[in-house]
Amino acid sequence: MTWKIANSALTQSELLNLESVFALGNGYLGVRGNFEETYGPDMTSIRGTYLNAFHDVIEIPYGEKLFAFPDTQQKLVNNIDAQTVLLYFDDDKVPFRLDHGTITGFERTLHMDKGYAERVVQWRSPQGKEIKLMFRRLVSFTRRELFAVHIAIEPVNFTGKLRIVSTVNGKVENYTNPNDPRVGAGHAKRMTIADTGVKGEYGYVVDETMVSKMKAACVTRHLLDGEASVALEAGSGANHGEVTYTADLSLNGPVHFTKYNVYTDNLRHGGGFLDRALQLHETLSGLSFDNLLAEQAEYMGSYWNSADCVIQNDDKLQEGIRFNLYQLLQSAGRDEHSNISAKGLSGEGYEGHYFWDTEIYMFPLFLMTRPDIARQLLLYRYSKLDDARARARQMGHKQGALFPWRTIAGTECSSFFPSGTAQYHISADIAYSYVQYYLAAQDKDFLLNYGAEMLVETARLWAGIGHYYEGAFHIDEVTGPDEYTCCVNNNYYTNVMAKHNLKWAAKSCAILKDYDPAACRALCERLGVTEAEIAAWDKAAAAMLLPYDASLGINPQDDTFLRKAVWDFENTPKENYPLLLHYHPLTIYRYQVCKQADTVLAHFLLEDEQDFATIRRSYDYYEKITTHDSSLSSCIFSIMACKIGNMEKAYEYFIETARLDLDNTHGNTKDGLHLANMGGTWMSIVYGFAGMRLKESGLSLAPAIPQDWEQYAFRLTFRGRLIDVRISQESVVLELAEGEAIGLKLYDEAVTLQPGGAVTRELRQ
Amino acid sequence: MTWKIANSALTQSELLNLESVFALGNGYLGVRGNFEETYGPDMTSIRGTYLNAFHDVIEIPYGEKLFAFPDTQQKLVNNIDAQTVLLYFDDDKVPFRLDHGTITGFERTLHMDKGYAERVVQWRSPQGKEIKLMFRRLVSFTRRELFAVHIAIEPVNFTGKLRIVSTVNGKVENYTNPNDPRVGAGHAKRMTIADTGVKGEYGYVVDETMVSKMKAACVTRHLLDGEASVALEAGSGANHGEVTYTADLSLNGPVHFTKYNVYTDNLRHGGGFLDRALQLHETLSGLSFDNLLAEQAEYMGSYWNSADCVIQNDDKLQEGIRFNLYQLLQSAGRDEHSNISAKGLSGEGYEGHYFWDTEIYMFPLFLMTRPDIARQLLLYRYSKLDDARARARQMGHKQGALFPWRTIAGTECSSFFPSGTAQYHISADIAYSYVQYYLAAQDKDFLLNYGAEMLVETARLWAGIGHYYEGAFHIDEVTGPDEYTCCVNNNYYTNVMAKHNLKWAAKSCAILKDYDPAACRALCERLGVTEAEIAAWDKAAAAMLLPYDASLGINPQDDTFLRKAVWDFENTPKENYPLLLHYHPLTIYRYQVCKQADTVLAHFLLEDEQDFATIRRSYDYYEKITTHDSSLSSCIFSIMACKIGNMEKAYEYFIETARLDLDNTHGNTKDGLHLANMGGTWMSIVYGFAGMRLKESGLSLAPAIPQDWEQYAFRLTFRGRLIDVRISQESVVLELAEGEAIGLKLYDEAVTLQPGGAVTRELRQ
Repeated sequence: MTWKIANSALTQSELLNLESVFALGNGYLGVRGNFEETYGPDMTSIRGTYLNAFHDVIEIPYGEKLFAFPDTQQKLVNNIDAQTVLLYFDDDKVPFRLDHGTITGFERTLHMDKGYAERVVQWRSPQGKEIKLMFRRLVSFTRRELFAVHIAIEPVNFTGKLRIVSTVNGKVENYTNPNDPRVGAGHAKRMTIADTGVKGEYGYVVDETMVSKMKAACVTRHLLDGEASVALEAGSGANHGEVTYTADLSLNGPVHFTKYNVYTDNLRHGGGFLDRALQLHETLSGLSFDNLLAEQAEYMGSYWNSADCVIQNDDKLQEGIRFNLYQLLQSAGRDEHSNISAKGLSGEGYEGHYFWDTEIYMFPLFLMTRPDIARQLLLYRYSKLDDARARARQMGHKQGALFPWRTIAGTECSSFFPSGTAQYHISADIAYSYVQYYLAAQDKDFLLNYGAEMLVETARLWAGIGHYYEGAFHIDEVTGPDEYTCCVNNNYYTNVMAKHNLKWAAKSCAILKDYDPAACRALCERLGVTEAEIAAWDKAAAAMLLPYDASLGINPQDDTFLRKAVWDFENTPKENYPLLLHYHPLTIYRYQVCKQADTVLAHFLLEDEQDFATIRRSYDYYEKITTHDSSLSSCIFSIMACKIGNMEKAYEYFIETARLDLDNTHGNTKDGLHLANMGGTWMSIVYGFAGMRLKESGLSLAPAIPQDWEQYAFRLTFRGRLIDVRISQESVVLELAEGEAIGLKLYDEAVTLQPGGAVTRELRQ
Repeated sequence: MTWKIANSALTQSELLNLESVFALGNGYLGVRGNFEETYGPDMTSIRGTYLNAFHDVIEIPYGEKLFAFPDTQQKLVNNIDAQTVLLYFDDDKVPFRLDHGTITGFERTLHMDKGYAERVVQWRSPQGKEIKLMFRRLVSFTRRELFAVHIAIEPVNFTGKLRIVSTVNGKVENYTNPNDPRVGAGHAKRMTIADTGVKGEYGYVVDETMVSKMKAACVTRHLLDGEASVALEAGSGANHGEVTYTADLSLNGPVHFTKYNVYTDNLRHGGGFLDRALQLHETLSGLSFDNLLAEQAEYMGSYWNSADCVIQNDDKLQEGIRFNLYQLLQSAGRDEHSNISAKGLSGEGYEGHYFWDTEIYMFPLFLMTRPDIARQLLLYRYSKLDDARARARQMGHKQGALFPWRTIAGTECSSFFPSGTAQYHISADIAYSYVQYYLAAQDKDFLLNYGAEMLVETARLWAGIGHYYEGAFHIDEVTGPDEYTCCVNNNYYTNVMAKHNLKWAAKSCAILKDYDPAACRALCERLGVTEAEIAAWDKAAAAMLLPYDASLGINPQDDTFLRKAVWDFENTPKENYPLLLHYHPLTIYRYQVCKQADTVLAHFLLEDEQDFATIRRSYDYYEKITTHDSSLSSCIFSIMACKIGNMEKAYEYFIETARLDLDNTHGNTKDGLHLANMGGTWMSIVYGFAGMRLKESGLSLAPAIPQDWEQYAFRLTFRGRLIDVRISQESVVLELAEGEAIGLKLYDEAVTLQPGGAVTRELRQ
């Protein structure tokens, strides 16, 4: 059962959330879980199809616009809708739809093991006709442009004619809610229809965005009972391509209808994107929906082989974790144009923007299960390096690169700088992900071709922004991850991450000098890196101020944090959370109150910078003043609760995160899934419970297990090996599932995994 | 000569600035110095007529709107235009205008002694007709609704017909500049015409604002050579009222044409505002333009008698100072709806908003020369107290009042909170002005009826926002006057002003308890003030943290200011000033760099809070890092240079301020005059050179004189006395021009001024 998300809810609010939950995607193309037959007029639905990174450009309005405030932002557009298929029985004027007639059976299932969604409906029409319908759909992982729908239509108590009207609608809009001020007015209509038509068996619709002038095509072919030649009418109106079929319904079995939709765009497929879609259709010729399902199942099998997490005796959690891993796979961009949006491809929240969520919360999963995708995520950032350089200049820095807080195409899209642009740490976060990749893959060519340049340019940002004061290197006027405290000096997180960034810029030069002196020299020449500059990075890193309060024995979040009053939690009613929606930012900034882990996160990412006692005291201190108003918080507190040995707390935080979207605990799943939290769930298990770390010294594990679990297991992909990790209440078993012998650290012991032999140790509690 | 601003410039850029310089106003009605005959098509003009506080409401756009960000702002609207009078000679198709024909003479004069503007033009038409024209105009100080224009038209070398077309135009727009992003698009058109018509001799136009639905009327009557009955046509189009006259031109003298325009609005005159305008016209019946000039001259005589500043041997400075005093008189609102906008009534910059400029830079002049106007300015703030209470609640404060950083109608109009709403000090600034008024007038009834409530409610803001840390009272997350450093903890200026505010809230309760125990009890009951609360104010004031750096011996601007790097002034090109227009706010905030006086201003306003050495060292420190990018800076540095005994510096700063608008040194006089700077000029003389202070101990003077001056003189109105102050290189002479004997302090000596007798002392250098 835990391979399937099953649901039979039909209420308005649940259906809206389930559109996100049942969304399908493959990193390029995403389709929300809307109903093919559409909805009655009383139902609000966010009918969505998205191409990752495919965006329009929107002017950002300001009451008072100051220097270097971004003029425009990118916005992921709701793309051409190919979901609609209407079914008419006999001469019924009104097609099958759930708002009339009687529903006698309804269940939908997300087949996470096989990678498709299914919906089975039993329905009696107002005229008494009983029908059984099965809708299945997939967005192919192996054919990134393909979204296919299959419908089996089976009459129960009648025979007669069936009329199928299948539509591809180019008249699409982004979602707006007039009652939600966060959804800007006038931003809904971002696409216009550029072309519609029919070519042979194919109908097509081409749309164009209003400002960015990006073009997308959806080319569709239909099969009715395996035949393409039975179309009654094929036409294309001003807004859409529409094809009508008829069939005879008998009591001998269902009619099968398949709709193959191929999406291309001029961002990936160039000017010939429409022809390219037609070519891609040719490669589908002869492939039935079952063939596609088989391909998909094979792909998923391979994914689960490396990425599955097993929790033995808790189906709810097992379901939650697999759902998260599944959705992450569906969301990750696979080319240099795209990354992972905060909501994946499941909704329109955060405008489809990419944040630090990728590097800090999602990258680790891919790094340790699908390094090919991790590498691709790094290359996306590399492709935006020139934008980051330009932004640094705009922001007054003579050298270096400042990555945007939120973006699609590479330029800063944040209009509120205190919790946007001021989060300079994103540049160090990106640098951190490059270092993690290097530690995992030891890929010196990648370091030479991409990593070193990224590390150098981000290090230059810190060298430029920082200054020496009383011998220590200070970084002023930035915002750390905690958005409830903005524009401060010496944010611990930022400083320690910048230190790591500076250190690794120098170190990567040293590694490359050793690896390929000529290439290293050429690189340094191209970038203008001198020995003196490298020495300056090392010096700044060594002198970096890491705030420490001796009386509390903790790292203060910033220079003045501990001098502020503590937020009056006792007199804050529950309905006033999240605070951001109920208090002016100045009011929030004025107090010791954290939206999310900040110093605690730094203590996770760079745990060797402080002794254990400082980390534990800091955890205790910050936990009391953290609201977890951000969905990026609980997973980190879970990991760090493990670190300080509080497994109960760790488990509490973990269960808060594991089913966040399945249970809609943040109340806004309709706008899309919380992808960073999903990555955080995996991190809670692997970094938290299992105590995994990846450092210069190599891979290490220090497993523990929650009291409620009998056993849990996962796999790690590391330097070409597939390592199986099984942890029970009694023991830790490590086994090499693939690859050659490899050493790692288990607790404090260096162990070597040999092919065919397991290493078993007693679990330390 | 120094009573007149004379100018004969005719270039585009100069004319635009001179529209502000030659603006006329009376605190209610303001008219820019535009030409009656209008301009050629190549000329850009900001044709403006403004009724103080008469505004429309505009939605504030945000990219990301957070809690308690204001939804709307007010905007002063450009009102009905009554300036236009076209003159046609014989059958000329084209009226007199300076873009054709030949200008043989042109001079305009602002008669500051008499309160009107004059323009004399000698012109030869393309057909060779030579004409001499004299335009005079006034906005009456004694009849606040009246704007009158008089034109004398005299042919030089021809006789014939004259046709006069006089227009009142309701189709008006605010100024926008498509090349200036600070001027929002779509904000131009704020008024529509509600009604136009003719009633007897009167033509009228009624306009209505688009959102706030405020209505204004302009009712106009014309006289041609003293007669009203010669109109050839009177009509009103969809957009305007227009009247055409004809006259015969002879060589025996000029034709005289007078246009009386009465402006009323439903904000001041209620629903019957149009009838009220007609009634007001009745009171003008029989009054010639010369009669009006005489009234105006009498009013001005009285003003100059109390407010004139004389500088004996520097005409340029004399002109500058009188101009400033004149424009301040023209700008100050005289009713509870209005205050003094940053640009007065001379232009549209800053949307006609009122800032702290009033209390800190303009109020002192009125307090010491026209206390009736000063009192009215206080009453304006009192009338907005409920809005300030509501804003405090919105901002999360359980009690007290937070005045808006910028406003017309009383609600916050600032959309960028770091240098807007965060400037909490405005509430203390307003409190300070109430205390200054009390110290000057000793008006305990005013304190009872208005002042105490204002002091109590503002003190409550500080009591609520502050907190104790290590025994000291801290105020976190506010912005001081220096907008180049935002959202800091313990801004010295804010803390010391809040201390004063808290102390005086307690003190005013004590004064009133003594003065009228029953009334005081009633007031405290109404406001819920208890003895415990009063004690808490005193305690907070006594414990207020006033940052002090022992190693430098100065007051740091805030807790972390001195730990930041100093701005790299050496490598900042001149064209990068003002920094605000060339660097992102984060970049500016990151460094020690001040836009304007902050701690230095605090040392002026509350000089007894620090010893002289600290004040002097602070001056030296901040002077090096202040850009004076704000026009509110130099005057304060001038005053404080006097205080520390550097008269050369004081004089340098003073001459920077004295003619700022006359010489357009900030380059944006076209958008309106810099009223705060104008008040600052007077302060530089009176508080700076003459060392005046007003404290609980009374009035004191400690005069000095710039080396270049022979003598300067001014008068002070103080507790019903008019005190004449004359300072030469050798001596100080104080004389009682009006009123009974009064004591004050001269240098360290207590002196008593007796009617009829002067006190003369040697000048101390």
